[in-house]
Amino acid sequence: MSLRVGIVGISGFGGGEALRLIAGHPSFDLVYAAGDGSAGRRLVDRFPGVAPRLADLVIERWVPESLPPLDVLLASLPTGTSAAALARVPPEVKIVDLGGDHRYAEGWTYGLADIWPDRIVGRSRIANPGCFPAAALTALAPLLAEGLIEPGHIVIDGKTGISGAGRGGGDSRFGYAESNENLVPYGLLQHVHMPEIAGTIEQLSGGSAAGLVFTPHLVPMTRGLLATIYCRGRATTAQCLAAARRFYAGRAFIRVTDAPPQTKWATGSNLAFVSYAADPGRNLVMAMGVVDNLGKGAAGQAVQNANLICCLPEGTGLEGAPVWP
Amino acid sequence: MSLRVGIVGISGFGGGEALRLIAGHPSFDLVYAAGDGSAGRRLVDRFPGVAPRLADLVIERWVPESLPPLDVLLASLPTGTSAAALARVPPEVKIVDLGGDHRYAEGWTYGLADIWPDRIVGRSRIANPGCFPAAALTALAPLLAEGLIEPGHIVIDGKTGISGAGRGGGDSRFGYAESNENLVPYGLLQHVHMPEIAGTIEQLSGGSAAGLVFTPHLVPMTRGLLATIYCRGRATTAQCLAAARRFYAGRAFIRVTDAPPQTKWATGSNLAFVSYAADPGRNLVMAMGVVDNLGKGAAGQAVQNANLICCLPEGTGLEGAPVWP
Amino acid sequence: MSLRVGIVGISGFGGGEALRLIAGHPSFDLVYAAGDGSAGRRLVDRFPGVAPRLADLVIERWVPESLPPLDVLLASLPTGTSAAALARVPPEVKIVDLGGDHRYAEGWTYGLADIWPDRIVGRSRIANPGCFPAAALTALAPLLAEGLIEPGHIVIDGKTGISGAGRGGGDSRFGYAESNENLVPYGLLQHVHMPEIAGTIEQLSGGSAAGLVFTPHLVPMTRGLLATIYCRGRATTAQCLAAARRFYAGRAFIRVTDAPPQTKWATGSNLAFVSYAADPGRNLVMAMGVVDNLGKGAAGQAVQNANLICCLPEGTGLEGAPVWP
Amino acid sequence: MSLRVGIVGISGFGGGEALRLIAGHPSFDLVYAAGDGSAGRRLVDRFPGVAPRLADLVIERWVPESLPPLDVLLASLPTGTSAAALARVPPEVKIVDLGGDHRYAEGWTYGLADIWPDRIVGRSRIANPGCFPAAALTALAPLLAEGLIEPGHIVIDGKTGISGAGRGGGDSRFGYAESNENLVPYGLLQHVHMPEIAGTIEQLSGGSAAGLVFTPHLVPMTRGLLATIYCRGRATTAQCLAAARRFYAGRAFIRVTDAPPQTKWATGSNLAFVSYAADPGRNLVMAMGVVDNLGKGAAGQAVQNANLICCLPEGTGLEGAPVWP
Repeated sequence: MSLRVGIVGISGFGGGEALRLIAGHPSFDLVYAAGDGSAGRRLVDRFPGVAPRLADLVIERWVPESLPPLDVLLASLPTGTSAAALARVPPEVKIVDLGGDHRYAEGWTYGLADIWPDRIVGRSRIANPGCFPAAALTALAPLLAEGLIEPGHIVIDGKTGISGAGRGGGDSRFGYAESNENLVPYGLLQHVHMPEIAGTIEQLSGGSAAGLVFTPHLVPMTRGLLATIYCRGRATTAQCLAAARRFYAGRAFIRVTDAPPQTKWATGSNLAFVSYAADPGRNLVMAMGVVDNLGKGAAGQAVQNANLICCLPEGTGLEGAPVWP
Repeated sequence: MSLRVGIVGISGFGGGEALRLIAGHPSFDLVYAAGDGSAGRRLVDRFPGVAPRLADLVIERWVPESLPPLDVLLASLPTGTSAAALARVPPEVKIVDLGGDHRYAEGWTYGLADIWPDRIVGRSRIANPGCFPAAALTALAPLLAEGLIEPGHIVIDGKTGISGAGRGGGDSRFGYAESNENLVPYGLLQHVHMPEIAGTIEQLSGGSAAGLVFTPHLVPMTRGLLATIYCRGRATTAQCLAAARRFYAGRAFIRVTDAPPQTKWATGSNLAFVSYAADPGRNLVMAMGVVDNLGKGAAGQAVQNANLICCLPEGTGLEGAPVWP
Repeated sequence: MSLRVGIVGISGFGGGEALRLIAGHPSFDLVYAAGDGSAGRRLVDRFPGVAPRLADLVIERWVPESLPPLDVLLASLPTGTSAAALARVPPEVKIVDLGGDHRYAEGWTYGLADIWPDRIVGRSRIANPGCFPAAALTALAPLLAEGLIEPGHIVIDGKTGISGAGRGGGDSRFGYAESNENLVPYGLLQHVHMPEIAGTIEQLSGGSAAGLVFTPHLVPMTRGLLATIYCRGRATTAQCLAAARRFYAGRAFIRVTDAPPQTKWATGSNLAFVSYAADPGRNLVMAMGVVDNLGKGAAGQAVQNANLICCLPEGTGLEGAPVWP
Repeated sequence: MSLRVGIVGISGFGGGEALRLIAGHPSFDLVYAAGDGSAGRRLVDRFPGVAPRLADLVIERWVPESLPPLDVLLASLPTGTSAAALARVPPEVKIVDLGGDHRYAEGWTYGLADIWPDRIVGRSRIANPGCFPAAALTALAPLLAEGLIEPGHIVIDGKTGISGAGRGGGDSRFGYAESNENLVPYGLLQHVHMPEIAGTIEQLSGGSAAGLVFTPHLVPMTRGLLATIYCRGRATTAQCLAAARRFYAGRAFIRVTDAPPQTKWATGSNLAFVSYAADPGRNLVMAMGVVDNLGKGAAGQAVQNANLICCLPEGTGLEGAPVWP
């Protein structure tokens, strides 16, 4: 039996990746695509490689009240614009919101699918985590759960590929010629992902994340995200790795590696890679998390959440191996 | 029922892409992987994102006489080294050779799977086409078959991503710092792919390809290949497009597009895109072909050939949409 | 003695490169910078590495009638917008127009500085050649001048870095995520540079360029441009190289090389590299030309033209070697 | 009057950049170039854009005892190989060692040219700083000198372009296809640059750098280096910026910026950019330093040091503005 899925925000990078995953999903059937930037065009006009059976689906203008019958809606709208619009979607349509408006919002479940799958199963309103939180929290969770680091002194140095800035209006700062060969720190001390990271650290540890520091950087690559995290703690590297292997035992999409992870390991997949390096003498525990910012960092996790809310096996349609090189 | 597949040359880019496709293939079971560069290591040590069920498969040193029982062997060995070695493989093991040694060689079928699938079904020894021929011949075939261009005056200007140069021994010319921001013509008037292109043009047209010109260029990108082809002919653009749509009617992996194709349309897929632009007044027909040099240009077509020789539906395991962006 | 120079279009890539070259020029003094996108900001706000003596120069809104006293104006405005505006500049201000409006226009000298320097010396209105013509014509000129190729059958396959598309309004097609790993043919059979290429071929050869074909491609790199050119002729490779060495004897910025040129050889410089490969048996002469599209292809040649019209040594301020890697 | 300069290690990236700078230097005359990888070839064969007057200089095999008469030798040899060889250079030849063997070694002056120029003037043996230390220490020095941060708790998250890994033997890990779209942490807790960073922190602050953490990352770009640094301190952002402006008042190559610096600002230049962001409430001071790893991070600073030891103005030949875009 197929479930009917819609995607809104199909013109953006998150929406496009959702399309790729839904098109290959054995239990989901794409019946609706909306995106103001491409409204009126067929899917094949925007995505020349789309499967022939989807080629002629016409992209619609996004009107929440006039959706076709849907089981699930994946919404990839700019942060700040989704809350009002999604409130108008009929309650019987389940929603996974890839945007930022509903993270830690009332009535919405925060969808860290690899850490809290049980909270998500069967729910109706899921706030998909941000890309940086997906990587950082996946790496931190085992340490916080076992009390191996101090929750109040965490420094996250994040690096993301430029698709993380969104397709937007084509801001020339994100143009090829200006972004290539350029590494750019931004959003210092105030990035929009701070609250969901802090909130989750507190949930996982029971302590305050008051000293959290998070610095994102744009890296000249299309996809890929690495969080390099500096914590205080007296655990050894081996203890951290063992904690992570316990924490993620049996979880399909998390890989705990001895070597520091590289972003290319995850390209095009829903995988997250975590590793650790510690020096008890310096009261230092380093954690590293790698994801594809459009995979586990956006559409991959969104499809995993969609599977969970529809009570399907969480990995359905997400088994594709990373693309290398 | 699963067929037993082996890959030799797993350390290289073609072998790695074959691994990705076989790992996701519903009817093939990877039971053997060999590669001198990685012998003795587990698959997961070379490919950190490989599926857990394949993680512990140990990469072996390549000894043609001591293979495990196999139905199909995909061989991705450097051109010049595969002929002697593959001659020692037992005859009951079917082979798809991604290397260049057997193209248009006696006893081997040239595996242009989208053009001559019937020649391939059930065969035992397939020479997989080179990456440039895969793109150029796919674009040219409809024109040659309908006599719309002169076979004796074809100029192919080819551009490939750097993975097309192979992983090799790490030649510093292909190092990131020297290849980035660099566009390099090479192999002028004498590239190794010339004979198979000329031979196939002659087969398709019945005429001589004596005036063939082919100039490859290395482009600073990992994957992707475009052949821009200049021919003599009096057909219109519409006639060329119509010829291609007739020629490829019902073929799953060929897309005929009105707009000139871009390499990113094919990334990570087995698709080929072809388009045309003609000016009868200048006696000019331009043909364009785009493939992922590791997809349709190597491992994708190899798996398509493996499907055909095993009498499986040719698209099995190859339905994945391109990765964008 | 210093000459007073102004730049209009300072926000764009051509204007920015002009700024870099003028800032290091021993005889030119930048006294005026205009650009609507940055008007009201200081130069240092747009170009953080600008020399301290220029840091506080305020970028003005471009009003042709209210210029400060200037000896030379370098204009880097979008094609289609410069003709009307530059007509309003006082006649005593010499102009080098980097845009396309005045190429082969009455009253303007076409500034192919390495081929026709004598036509430029002391003039007042120079139309700077386009980037593709700069590369292609430099490679073709010696062959045309000596009658080694047929002017009526020339095929130019051009490849440029993405800065060649201009900084524009940040069209998302030129965004990093969509341009990276993408090779894009465009402007088929009708690119805006066709007329100046054809016109110059005719001047150089005395024959008709009626059969000219020109296909530009966008390559995922910031700078660099290669024209691969296919001609009919019976000359040998050695004859072509010898012709080029004769033609460019004593010319400072042209390098004739035995090996096919690579775009990185020219990065950041005013150099052009040309080479040839011929096969008399196939009636084939290949010519190749490499430039930095912002150097010899735009601002470098513009400063060379500015030197010539001011009767300075043409290489003044342009001696910097290419940046490698 | 020209001073006679030699470069050993001309085949590498540091040596190549030194060549570019020396070729444009008004007081230095390149009379000797050595490099085992290119011995016997002319400079123009390795550097096709080199100035004609240097084109025919033959690259020699490196034999320290048989140098021509030289005033200064710039040595860009792999760390671990320069100490023994440079000990054999006659004492009357002044040396700037771009390699790592002599940093904080007896008899050698550590050449942080923008911070301690007076220590360098007239000296004979200079150890050029590493690329990461050049960026990190430039950013930290003002804070340490004024006691605004604790020297014992500094975390440096460093990111460099891939030319920083050297040209080496063409290790395939640094090949284009494997490095592109890949961000790689390495050398965790033990990078070779740690001692010179720690030693200099201690000199500048008078305190112990015992808690220093330094994590380098390889970023998919050719040039550029950013150090993002996390410190403990109660200063405000404004206080940090003011301290830096005091510390570097009148220094030609340091730019203190309000906005966080981007690597492209420095490309091809000898500039360093520093900025700061602080939150006294979190006991946090962030410092950022940007350099071109081959400019201020290697050859640019080496030429600055060569100027100082020859008692020339330190900026001679280094005034070129960054290349943008």
